[in-house]
Amino acid sequence: MWKPNRQSNKPIYEQIADHLERRISYGEFPPGSLLPSERKLAEQLGVNRSTVILAFAELRATGIIESRTGSGTRVSKTKWGALPRHTPNWSRYAEGGNFLPNLPFMRRIREALHQHPDLIDFASGELSGGLAPNEEIASLMSEHRYTSYLGYVNPQGYTPLREALVSYLRQYRGIQTTESSILVTSGSQQSLFLITQCLLSPGDAVAIEDPSYCYSLPMFQSAGLRLFRLPVDQHGICPEAIRSLYKKHRIKMVFLNPNFQNPTGTVLSEERRKELFDVVSELGLPVVEDDPFGLTAYRGDAPAPLKASDPSGSVLYIGSFSKIAASGLRIGWMVAPRSIVERLADARQQMDFGLSVIPQQVAAQFLKSSYFEPHLDRLRMQLLFKRDLLIEALRRELAGQIEFTVPEGGLHLWCRLVPEVHDGKLLEEAIRRGIVFVPGSVYGSDSGYVRFTFARPQAEEIGPGIAKFAEALRSLTV
Amino acid sequence: MWKPNRQSNKPIYEQIADHLERRISYGEFPPGSLLPSERKLAEQLGVNRSTVILAFAELRATGIIESRTGSGTRVSKTKWGALPRHTPNWSRYAEGGNFLPNLPFMRRIREALHQHPDLIDFASGELSGGLAPNEEIASLMSEHRYTSYLGYVNPQGYTPLREALVSYLRQYRGIQTTESSILVTSGSQQSLFLITQCLLSPGDAVAIEDPSYCYSLPMFQSAGLRLFRLPVDQHGICPEAIRSLYKKHRIKMVFLNPNFQNPTGTVLSEERRKELFDVVSELGLPVVEDDPFGLTAYRGDAPAPLKASDPSGSVLYIGSFSKIAASGLRIGWMVAPRSIVERLADARQQMDFGLSVIPQQVAAQFLKSSYFEPHLDRLRMQLLFKRDLLIEALRRELAGQIEFTVPEGGLHLWCRLVPEVHDGKLLEEAIRRGIVFVPGSVYGSDSGYVRFTFARPQAEEIGPGIAKFAEALRSLTV
Repeated sequence: MWKPNRQSNKPIYEQIADHLERRISYGEFPPGSLLPSERKLAEQLGVNRSTVILAFAELRATGIIESRTGSGTRVSKTKWGALPRHTPNWSRYAEGGNFLPNLPFMRRIREALHQHPDLIDFASGELSGGLAPNEEIASLMSEHRYTSYLGYVNPQGYTPLREALVSYLRQYRGIQTTESSILVTSGSQQSLFLITQCLLSPGDAVAIEDPSYCYSLPMFQSAGLRLFRLPVDQHGICPEAIRSLYKKHRIKMVFLNPNFQNPTGTVLSEERRKELFDVVSELGLPVVEDDPFGLTAYRGDAPAPLKASDPSGSVLYIGSFSKIAASGLRIGWMVAPRSIVERLADARQQMDFGLSVIPQQVAAQFLKSSYFEPHLDRLRMQLLFKRDLLIEALRRELAGQIEFTVPEGGLHLWCRLVPEVHDGKLLEEAIRRGIVFVPGSVYGSDSGYVRFTFARPQAEEIGPGIAKFAEALRSLTV
Repeated sequence: MWKPNRQSNKPIYEQIADHLERRISYGEFPPGSLLPSERKLAEQLGVNRSTVILAFAELRATGIIESRTGSGTRVSKTKWGALPRHTPNWSRYAEGGNFLPNLPFMRRIREALHQHPDLIDFASGELSGGLAPNEEIASLMSEHRYTSYLGYVNPQGYTPLREALVSYLRQYRGIQTTESSILVTSGSQQSLFLITQCLLSPGDAVAIEDPSYCYSLPMFQSAGLRLFRLPVDQHGICPEAIRSLYKKHRIKMVFLNPNFQNPTGTVLSEERRKELFDVVSELGLPVVEDDPFGLTAYRGDAPAPLKASDPSGSVLYIGSFSKIAASGLRIGWMVAPRSIVERLADARQQMDFGLSVIPQQVAAQFLKSSYFEPHLDRLRMQLLFKRDLLIEALRRELAGQIEFTVPEGGLHLWCRLVPEVHDGKLLEEAIRRGIVFVPGSVYGSDSGYVRFTFARPQAEEIGPGIAKFAEALRSLTV
């Protein structure tokens, strides 16, 4: 990103004015469009706000921009649009299409993290750099000279990766499958996108857990689906609720995250699993099982996925490396009947022509390497360590203010706040003090819940981060 | 992929029966679903058809499958569905959603290439392994130890790659831009998908070239767009036609491929470019410029993109590595006003959460490396060499039967066949003789046109491939 040159003889405000004029002339800010605020630009460029005010004044003087009180600074239409030329009305185009923007809270969190990279991050649902196998993957990349042909690969994904996944699924998840039943995707996100866009139609009703990270995904709304809730207690969802939703709303599909559910950390109990299969096989209903956390069980055996016993062939299984290795690999997979895999592979060709072969090769090597098993062991140990740091800090800083169930796997802790506070205000107070978390309403729950991701912050940030959160909470309740 | 073990004591047909039973029990073929034909399975497994017939008989005897004359072999519903359990009606789900399947000719070509990997391939619009910089990329990957954090990256793409693209676009394409105006995409395909899905709404009218590879992309129909044609002559499209389409149909956007257009190889003339800008700036119409082939100019300077002079800021520019380096990298880019880039980046997060950071890092290194320029020189030389081999072969084998304009860049040659033949029959005759090409109707033109991609086959395959094509043509015209 461009920064003013402090060694130059040219005043900084003039450098900024020139830089903005150049960006406007490139078309980055078309006539009539809004420029970033003085405050925001000052932050981005690392200068005082007064310097930006001078730069804006310079540009206003030449007629390139116009400011109106309360409505910000815009690129002038009269100067740039004086010719009989019309720039397309880009902002109208930006409002087209079916894709809803991300939820306001999620955008606010992303924006805050972008502006203040030093925020303590309890919000991003991913592993910290230290938990990801960066070293192992760097070693694999330099040990194995890259040899594959760099052309388009099989629409279902790079065959050696699908073969490695067949062994992985058998060994680690108890799932019997073949490489022709596997679709490699850009993480669980793309699997869900393909299912919601290509197997369902606008207006279709589906059942999702309550709370559920699905609520945080505008893709369900973008696909025009009607969402119905399956309340989650400490044993997971209650399968009989599926039957009544089916009767009332003719739901077409059920989305579940049975192992260390996001956000609650719950594992669907054995008994509920049996009931679930009875209900869905009676109704002929497909279940989408998202299983990103199964292997993060901190102690003892990982709970089996539904797909490992699927008597009626009702389960579309989704897995990914994002939560157990590295989200930046963007490697996920779906196990489904062949007709579904072929349909989705064909649709995906229309969207992006498939994934790059390079991360697919890296993922296949990693799965087959001697690094994989020790990485998982280390990950589980460190997640447990960080979970305990978080719990200690919560008990120390927020005794009596907060309630939670201790999760035995996953990346998150789900808390109920005892004092009544406004979700949005709490988030703003927390950001002001240097931390972010995700308000529970993002997952469809009532106000007063919070999700902390303990996998993302550094271990030494957890205690101080929760102290800041406690301050933020106190500032709103005292 | 599983193959029978010829060293085993168990008869091969029994091995196949066991293997199929296992795949059926995994859910790959649910009750009622169609199995691959005996012929197809025999091919896949490398056995005689009679062996597969025996295996099927075995499975039929145990009631696992059922065959009915003329409707193929299906997994038995009575055996597997005897329980009071219902498998979801997967085939109905596979028909859901808005995504149309790929065009029949494109599916036929893909299927033929899958079944007979030794077909001479004049169809796939990509470089042969020899033209791609495989060695260079393998070297870069082993020289530069991978160091980035493997987390989620900026939604617009990995920042060092966007910075490298700013220099690349300035130096090679004469485009002035900044990294905040760039969106890194999974090839041009994803750029077009994002534009058609997120900036346009179902029912919107758009103008595309005739012929155009856009017709081969069902994504335009999947997005519910109404397509109107801009005929291409030897100087490209005629811009006045845009005005009349606008008057008649209120077109919302124009899609152009001005440099070495796919499939015709045409370059939009200077005069037409001026007219184009007059028309679109008068109407305030956005132009999507797809520029995959600009740098393939065999001799002399590469023609400039429209975006290099864009007086009214009307151009959304799309580029990619697929046709100048390696399609398997899946790296493309879009240059657009900031509001558009932000909107599309946000929507893309919903679809796939962005690209893997690894190929983005590789692409950035390749662009900045000393390999890039020599690679381009070698590519241009070899494309010219292969183009000439194709032209020679066509003149030798098909004198008087075929007409074409010699392209000065790009990967394709567009031909008109003099004798009247049926597109589909010609393709089948060609496949039977061992080659594939793309029938012109895929690009929206009338029957009687053919696109040959000379970049994909090996140099030594071009002559024999065209001889086979000539045989196929003769078999239908004599």
